[in-house]
Amino acid sequence: MSDYRKGGFTLPGEAGYEELTLKMAEKWGADVIRDSDGTKLSPRIVEAGYRIYSTICIIREHNAFAQAHPDAQQQTFLSSDPQTAVSDTLEIAPLDGYFDEQFQLNDSPDALPYWQVWDRTANALVPRDQWEWAEGKITLRGCVPYHRYSASFLVWRIWEEINMYNHTTNHWTSEHLRQLDPRHPLAWEYLQGWLKNWCEANPDTNVVRLTSLFYNFVWIFGSDLRRRSRFVDWASYDFTVSPAALRAFEQEYGYALTAEDFIHQGKLQATHRPPTAHKRDYMDFIQRFVAEKAKALVDIIHAYGKQAYVFYDDSWVGMEPYGKYFASIGFDGLIKCVFSGFECRLCAGADVPVHELRFHPYLFPVGLGGLPTFMEGGHPEQDAVAYWLHVRRALARQCVDRIGLGGYLHLTIGQEPFNDAIEQMGITFRHLKELHAQEAPAELPITVAVLHSWGSLRSWTLSGHFHETDQNVLIHINEALSGLPVKVKFISFADAKAGALKDADVVISAGRAGDAWSGGDAWQDPELVAEVTRFVYEGGCLIGAGEPTAATGGDTRFALAHVLGVDQDDGAYACHAPWEFKVEENAPFLIAEEALARTPGIRLTGPDTRVLRAEGNTPTLTLHAFGQGKAVYLGGFAYSPRAARMLLELLLCLTGAEGKAAGLTDDPLTECVWFPEQKTLVVMNSADAPVDARVALPGGQIPVHLEAHETLFKMIGSD
Amino acid sequence: MSDYRKGGFTLPGEAGYEELTLKMAEKWGADVIRDSDGTKLSPRIVEAGYRIYSTICIIREHNAFAQAHPDAQQQTFLSSDPQTAVSDTLEIAPLDGYFDEQFQLNDSPDALPYWQVWDRTANALVPRDQWEWAEGKITLRGCVPYHRYSASFLVWRIWEEINMYNHTTNHWTSEHLRQLDPRHPLAWEYLQGWLKNWCEANPDTNVVRLTSLFYNFVWIFGSDLRRRSRFVDWASYDFTVSPAALRAFEQEYGYALTAEDFIHQGKLQATHRPPTAHKRDYMDFIQRFVAEKAKALVDIIHAYGKQAYVFYDDSWVGMEPYGKYFASIGFDGLIKCVFSGFECRLCAGADVPVHELRFHPYLFPVGLGGLPTFMEGGHPEQDAVAYWLHVRRALARQCVDRIGLGGYLHLTIGQEPFNDAIEQMGITFRHLKELHAQEAPAELPITVAVLHSWGSLRSWTLSGHFHETDQNVLIHINEALSGLPVKVKFISFADAKAGALKDADVVISAGRAGDAWSGGDAWQDPELVAEVTRFVYEGGCLIGAGEPTAATGGDTRFALAHVLGVDQDDGAYACHAPWEFKVEENAPFLIAEEALARTPGIRLTGPDTRVLRAEGNTPTLTLHAFGQGKAVYLGGFAYSPRAARMLLELLLCLTGAEGKAAGLTDDPLTECVWFPEQKTLVVMNSADAPVDARVALPGGQIPVHLEAHETLFKMIGSD
Repeated sequence: MSDYRKGGFTLPGEAGYEELTLKMAEKWGADVIRDSDGTKLSPRIVEAGYRIYSTICIIREHNAFAQAHPDAQQQTFLSSDPQTAVSDTLEIAPLDGYFDEQFQLNDSPDALPYWQVWDRTANALVPRDQWEWAEGKITLRGCVPYHRYSASFLVWRIWEEINMYNHTTNHWTSEHLRQLDPRHPLAWEYLQGWLKNWCEANPDTNVVRLTSLFYNFVWIFGSDLRRRSRFVDWASYDFTVSPAALRAFEQEYGYALTAEDFIHQGKLQATHRPPTAHKRDYMDFIQRFVAEKAKALVDIIHAYGKQAYVFYDDSWVGMEPYGKYFASIGFDGLIKCVFSGFECRLCAGADVPVHELRFHPYLFPVGLGGLPTFMEGGHPEQDAVAYWLHVRRALARQCVDRIGLGGYLHLTIGQEPFNDAIEQMGITFRHLKELHAQEAPAELPITVAVLHSWGSLRSWTLSGHFHETDQNVLIHINEALSGLPVKVKFISFADAKAGALKDADVVISAGRAGDAWSGGDAWQDPELVAEVTRFVYEGGCLIGAGEPTAATGGDTRFALAHVLGVDQDDGAYACHAPWEFKVEENAPFLIAEEALARTPGIRLTGPDTRVLRAEGNTPTLTLHAFGQGKAVYLGGFAYSPRAARMLLELLLCLTGAEGKAAGLTDDPLTECVWFPEQKTLVVMNSADAPVDARVALPGGQIPVHLEAHETLFKMIGSD
Repeated sequence: MSDYRKGGFTLPGEAGYEELTLKMAEKWGADVIRDSDGTKLSPRIVEAGYRIYSTICIIREHNAFAQAHPDAQQQTFLSSDPQTAVSDTLEIAPLDGYFDEQFQLNDSPDALPYWQVWDRTANALVPRDQWEWAEGKITLRGCVPYHRYSASFLVWRIWEEINMYNHTTNHWTSEHLRQLDPRHPLAWEYLQGWLKNWCEANPDTNVVRLTSLFYNFVWIFGSDLRRRSRFVDWASYDFTVSPAALRAFEQEYGYALTAEDFIHQGKLQATHRPPTAHKRDYMDFIQRFVAEKAKALVDIIHAYGKQAYVFYDDSWVGMEPYGKYFASIGFDGLIKCVFSGFECRLCAGADVPVHELRFHPYLFPVGLGGLPTFMEGGHPEQDAVAYWLHVRRALARQCVDRIGLGGYLHLTIGQEPFNDAIEQMGITFRHLKELHAQEAPAELPITVAVLHSWGSLRSWTLSGHFHETDQNVLIHINEALSGLPVKVKFISFADAKAGALKDADVVISAGRAGDAWSGGDAWQDPELVAEVTRFVYEGGCLIGAGEPTAATGGDTRFALAHVLGVDQDDGAYACHAPWEFKVEENAPFLIAEEALARTPGIRLTGPDTRVLRAEGNTPTLTLHAFGQGKAVYLGGFAYSPRAARMLLELLLCLTGAEGKAAGLTDDPLTECVWFPEQKTLVVMNSADAPVDARVALPGGQIPVHLEAHETLFKMIGSD
């Protein structure tokens, strides 16, 4: 049997630290050495017998070309901050308030026709003949006094956003990098040639590791340091736009998009909001474009006998791994940086040959949010273990092919606790991978369908990392689900209406009123409401969290209030008395009180809703029978190991499944995974202290002892 | 000079306690003796030389007539709790869940055509040919499975609601009283005759004190004790309806109201919600009817040489004292029971010859919310003083003509502290009244316009007492305003558009998103938004509290966000960074921190909004300059003497007025009123302890010493 000391590990090498590179490759069992943004590999490393990954960001680092062809740069729509007219004329300086190192107005003849001026008070487009653009300002005539006006316009993005971030945050002083739009014919020609040259110039590279593709997530900087980062959406499509894209779209779809399809009253169309039909069309249009161009690049890479892996961060827009066209690109591997379990599942489940995780912390002096990591005041080992505890449980459920790190390897010097922890993680990973290679671990006969506006396109993730989206209850639920022994699928409202509930045992709706996760006015659709009602009535289960199924215009605030057994008073019930209730102290499952929260205005729909927990007069956890089915309402859900355990017990309670079928520990801070054919039990302790627990399996109870954070592999019947 | 010992006081007499009645009349300086609900006056009292009030509730206590003419009883629309169809048929028992002692189905030939069945899932009326009414149930065919259906129907109200309340709360066991609808021709004939007989039978009565008029506020009881009081709205019009009313309305207005105009998806049209255009029409229709019938009754009373006073509670619907038709009724007096200052102002400002307050607590064993008053465990003196402190400051600003009590006089036996406190209040009241008789007290040159959906119709009140509406920020503001030296008017959005802001210095918008006070979608009207924008831009001031001017569909959540300097994130700004801010510790006015509250999602609209207080990252008090004007945002406002002082200082700060023009104490727990011609300063201490303070007046600083709760009358220059 293997000692799990080598393989499946990507090490960031560093020129000038050849000895260290080879030593750490040995310690961590690396089979691959990579460069990182800011590092190079030296010949001694490249020739040491390891496979080599080389990082490229295809649209960046072509400043000479960008300078020569400024119209090949990427663009976006912006809108000016609305100004109040106090007479019948108004002047607008469009870019006021935006960071002038990021944006430059595009008033070229093919862009200006897309500019618009809006009367935001009347929510009306201002006729084109009421304004003119001259001398750097829009002059508007015939305004209605005391209405507010805003201009929407196109800009060139003249600073690649990741580079801009590094400059403004880490005080880089090098030349600002620009980015090319592959939709521009000359740029596209140039990029293909550049990639061919690159492949020829890098014969030792086995894997071209693309720091994703073409279009960055949306990141708009302001001129004022009190609001430097005006808008950040990790999955929006605003940065893909250009007059050329708009013309191509119109030709294909038979209707024209306008600035307002992007600007959306100045709110932009954030991923957390339900998409319009136009946005859905546009996203599909861009996804096909990205896939087509990406495939052309991958074909070039393959032609040079190399593999193409893609890193799913930064310029990822349009290449979502669960999008319709992702598989058609032909990537050989997907690399995902992970802080959380849900990111591990996101990577592990993608349709691509190799799945690789990039662990955190990166080997950088400073980590998340500017806190020290590999410098004085940092605790890299603690950080690594904290992320590992999130990732491990997901990895145990669905393993990936590879793991690795990124950054400056020399920062590991003197960091023995960190280095040892990574070594141990590698060993555990390889052991899990070997178990998974033989069989999938035992699962409960429960399929959970997470229902929201995006469906499978946004499987597991909402639109960024956990800490970027943690105000959303759903990401906490997804994180909990990532380590539970149940099948999880992500379905859209259209999927649900088309029959996707037939495989589901439990449907989850979790979000805030009006957002893409709760669904907003999708719930005005009687067909959707009736379908989920039928599903539960006939024996299905529903879990609602936060403000699930909230919509405007209905007779209840929650479209499924009658199923959930709770509704929300948004003011309409000011004179309607709520049902009184008593809290049942003895719940049929473990309740992680600290994970719950009060959602204002929650009240019962009738006397039959059981209240398991409440905060003051507001229920925070309820159970309601509906027909043959059941519904649970959670006022909040904050991820923790105990919260995940509560969710597991809740699923068992709702469905009547037996936990021991997949193995069930008797301690909420431990979890287990059971590989029945290999008779191997994996028990994981997330506690900071040793634990003695018992694990229920189909064959009986197994006592286990685990040290703090330990992963225990135990052959049953062998000791 | 008077010693203020007698006059303007109405004493509740009680037969069997003649000595006590006359003794207390002497002590409290009564000039009027009244009966109360449940008491009678004996000849000895009636003949003792006092004026006599007699209480009648005109529509109640006619059970014999009601039994003989059941179709003369009052009615309402109700709707059944929605039921989910699980096949294509459904049976509905309409009254399930309602209190069967209050309601009886009206399926008479003139009522049944008004019944409706709604598909609440599709928000669609079910065609009449899909359902039938037979054997006590509605049978619905051709349902869409898993849609929810509800029936709307008419019922007779067979138990007068105040009587029902007393039975169910105070365990009364007498016969249930019924109530007649004056719209029924026979009932109307009968009631007029009954009143004539009554007047003839009660020659000693000087004032007929009508326990209001015809239609009770809406109070709907349920069958389940866990939700006995299903719906209570102190100002809604549902209890005025009948087929006859609907026919008359249709004839006059040229369009028919339907059940849904009242049922409104089962939510009913509560007063806290913005009214529909249909509801406004219907209210005007009912107000004219009530005024016309009330005038006929008053004419009868006058014909017998008696006066008609009306008590503004219970069956008050349609006779709002600030309604268009109130003055036309010809009442001789308005009596208002008061817990609060705003109720005093409501009474004092009505267009009627005599204004009288009924002080609390009533002489009942049990008071508000079932707490003991004149029984073991009660503290009637403390209660009386607590209410007095609220009422006094309003009385000092705008005096009324009379005060008094209600209830069982014998309960005052042995309650010397209470009896002394009332005696002292009478003296203070008479002193204030005499000052007011000479001149209005000094006011600041500030007119405050409170802006909401109802305008002057709901001046001062929202729809009930303070404790019934205290979840609404506006009632706290109204209460504060009731004692401030400023002019206050209540204007509707239509008024504002018609020019009502021209007299205003400060506009207040205070409410919750979507309610009648904040205004809801009234703020989708660009004309309204522009008008208030203009008002502030040109130098006016705006105070917003809670979720002011919140509307859906705009580019901002608050329609006046650009004026207020704050907006609210309802989820649309999930990816938009808020402006960072620093809290200014030194505010230009007193801040009652405890009165503020965090309204979720509040953020600045720009860098120029000054944050005076915040809770975490949420501003709770801000100042914003806009054009020549200013705006203040308050996250919350909970009434207290210190909160009232904050509001006063805020008004001074916004307008630049000088407080000493009307007198300004230097202690926030004291207030003063200045009568310049009489050179009399009234200083009131709301603190439970003595206070030494200084009062700034136009002529200089006046030092004062006040005992706890004291009202000090001080001639300036005379000591």
